[in-house]
Amino acid sequence: MKKITIAVDAMGGDHGPSVVVPASLKVLAEHPALHIMLVGDSLILQNILQNQAFDNSRLTIRHASQRVEMNESPVSALRSKKDSSMRVAINLVNSGEAAACVSAGNTGALMATSHFVLKTLEGIDRAAIISTFPTLSGKNVRMLDLGANVDSDPKHLFQFAIMGSVLVQAIENIENPKVYLLNIGLEDIKGNELVKETSNLLSQTKAINYAGYIEGDQIYKGEADVIVCDGFVGNVALKVTEGVANFVRTSLKNAFTRTLLTKIAAFFSMPILKSLVKRIDPDRYNGACFLGLKGIVIKSHGGANSKAFAHAIEEAIVQVEKNIPERISASVEKLLKLSS
Amino acid sequence: MKKITIAVDAMGGDHGPSVVVPASLKVLAEHPALHIMLVGDSLILQNILQNQAFDNSRLTIRHASQRVEMNESPVSALRSKKDSSMRVAINLVNSGEAAACVSAGNTGALMATSHFVLKTLEGIDRAAIISTFPTLSGKNVRMLDLGANVDSDPKHLFQFAIMGSVLVQAIENIENPKVYLLNIGLEDIKGNELVKETSNLLSQTKAINYAGYIEGDQIYKGEADVIVCDGFVGNVALKVTEGVANFVRTSLKNAFTRTLLTKIAAFFSMPILKSLVKRIDPDRYNGACFLGLKGIVIKSHGGANSKAFAHAIEEAIVQVEKNIPERISASVEKLLKLSS
Repeated sequence: MKKITIAVDAMGGDHGPSVVVPASLKVLAEHPALHIMLVGDSLILQNILQNQAFDNSRLTIRHASQRVEMNESPVSALRSKKDSSMRVAINLVNSGEAAACVSAGNTGALMATSHFVLKTLEGIDRAAIISTFPTLSGKNVRMLDLGANVDSDPKHLFQFAIMGSVLVQAIENIENPKVYLLNIGLEDIKGNELVKETSNLLSQTKAINYAGYIEGDQIYKGEADVIVCDGFVGNVALKVTEGVANFVRTSLKNAFTRTLLTKIAAFFSMPILKSLVKRIDPDRYNGACFLGLKGIVIKSHGGANSKAFAHAIEEAIVQVEKNIPERISASVEKLLKLSS
Repeated sequence: MKKITIAVDAMGGDHGPSVVVPASLKVLAEHPALHIMLVGDSLILQNILQNQAFDNSRLTIRHASQRVEMNESPVSALRSKKDSSMRVAINLVNSGEAAACVSAGNTGALMATSHFVLKTLEGIDRAAIISTFPTLSGKNVRMLDLGANVDSDPKHLFQFAIMGSVLVQAIENIENPKVYLLNIGLEDIKGNELVKETSNLLSQTKAINYAGYIEGDQIYKGEADVIVCDGFVGNVALKVTEGVANFVRTSLKNAFTRTLLTKIAAFFSMPILKSLVKRIDPDRYNGACFLGLKGIVIKSHGGANSKAFAHAIEEAIVQVEKNIPERISASVEKLLKLSS
């Protein structure tokens, strides 16, 4: 197995090193070919690591004197945090010392810094955030953009469709992933100008398997492999999903703990409810990817626990193994040649 | 109690009269001051009614020779279905014979025909679809636009905010309803151009209690009274909600019927799950309103059962009792005077 080096922003997220370090140790123990560079305040990191057993040939600390705050503006992070754990982790990808980086830091700052340092691939104007949703069929569906770009134009959505298709092809081994466009109806006359024009573009290309429009309630059915939308719409869809899941979870919890009788019912139902919760467990789906950059950047939820953060590192490993940026690049190059 | 007449499109929806007639009889039995005009094929309607007991002084049939198909284009409905049950029901509102109309027919056709026949109120450019969402706090939240308009501009969203505020004030008796704008972050720099410009407009008016941005996961918390967004985004949020709720419901059902043991657990949990399902029951929230027209038009889900359709008729009664169009008109008039 080939050695893989991943730079991990140890100071990012709501919990910083207290989540990132245990997550890193966990993933290291499971992947013998993995090397992790923990980027952050070396004193703090040494302190946390001193009582832990680990293979120090595969875990190194890279000092960074600053950290990007969770509510810091992208501009401020870019201008005044040149030695932040986030920036240094991304720099390590740019210099080739790391094959990918993982951060639970502020999304806007991570996006802006990744764009600035790594640049987008040839033929790609904007990077997009892609992540996985669970479905009833058991198959995963990937949706992009989940909030990197607002006010996208049809050309951007077209590029997102290409990138999503390449990613799913590589990771899920699906030959012609079915790519859908999120809309508010299935007929041609439905939707806004952006969706209609993008659908025209997608209908004309043979580069991907464009399957037409899909509505919001169909995301969870499992028909689509890739769903494309503008970042504003995608972010609303993602957060509404979280909101409804949380609503149901809290309502169930309240209902089952109301009386002695309902507590008895809860005892009997616990294994079932747990298996359901596990199935839609956001931790399992943690690790959104910034697709379209000359390098792999994985974004973890800010509030991730160590299990969820570990999942984000696993996602980075998969993307490195599958050479995602190179594949997108090859695909876009082919497409550009065809159309020139 | 004052007599209220409501025109009901008996041929609309996936099930037509087989749902609409029982629903109408149910609501008539509960509201002694209600008069319903069933609009549709009189032969079919007489046939269904002949074996039913009802007060025929309060239920009349108005013949209409055509029906708008569920997948018919708005243009075709407008041009070639001038004697459809939908069109005649709306005409009855326009002529003053009915105080409101209720239809489970095709949304696009209903919207286009309502606009064409009734026209929008003075100072309102476009009507919007508003409906109710359940929340954890138990309080309802109303969101608009849920799909009547795409590519809205800031002026439209501003008008939606005013209309939503007036509706909630009247129906929920809340003095200064908290109006939020749906966005993908809470900071000023977040969001697309539409949201930023609308927020500027709303910040400058004293006519409503504008509380700022809200994210998709917060819809179900119960902080907001009214949430405003473009129809494309609102429709995605609505359908994603349906999709996730359906995902959870189906997953629970599958999990509880897997083995004998899980079936026993299901027996104990049934009352709890039923109470939860009831709480998020879409039937209870059926009856979206087209807000901003010179008349009351209530849209039922196409697939509504008779309980859900009855709820849509109830919604029409409330809007008639509360004089919603007059109140919006008065509020907009006041606003126009202030700004002129």
